[in-house]
Amino acid sequence: MFKARVHVLLKPGVLDPQGSAVQKALQTMEYRGVQEVRIGRYIEIYLESESKEKASREVEEMCQRLLANPVIEDFTFEVVEETS
Amino acid sequence: MFKARVHVLLKPGVLDPQGSAVQKALQTMEYRGVQEVRIGRYIEIYLESESKEKASREVEEMCQRLLANPVIEDFTFEVVEETS
Repeated sequence: MFKARVHVLLKPGVLDPQGSAVQKALQTMEYRGVQEVRIGRYIEIYLESESKEKASREVEEMCQRLLANPVIEDFTFEVVEETS
Repeated sequence: MFKARVHVLLKPGVLDPQGSAVQKALQTMEYRGVQEVRIGRYIEIYLESESKEKASREVEEMCQRLLANPVIEDFTFEVVEETS
């Protein structure tokens, strides 16, 4: 069993209204040091696979086809073997 | 300048309908090895602070007060110094 940890974030320069709203809320709550907030998705995928390499290839494909919007989002991921 | 990387995930056992939907979609797309998908938020916060310790205390407080719902969500974070 493998576990993939996927991060999906808006590309730099793409407007992040949710991040801006949280940033303003934090500043209103007296956290004056806050300069910028970016909000993305964090996805954990547990999958069976023959090898770590195959699992990584599949996860990369899943990101491109379903999990991220490659026009406006970047993704990164890591795959680790789960010992259960 | 410090950068905090915050992960917010539903607690184990809390129903994750978005994760279930993505899991079913991936299985329909022939990724038959997928066993479970959990979807959470990933938040990057850039903040000015006197020290890493103070930044960590502030980020922990932000998570408890605004970024996570402690009833149904767990959060983890790390703070790193940004050299820019």
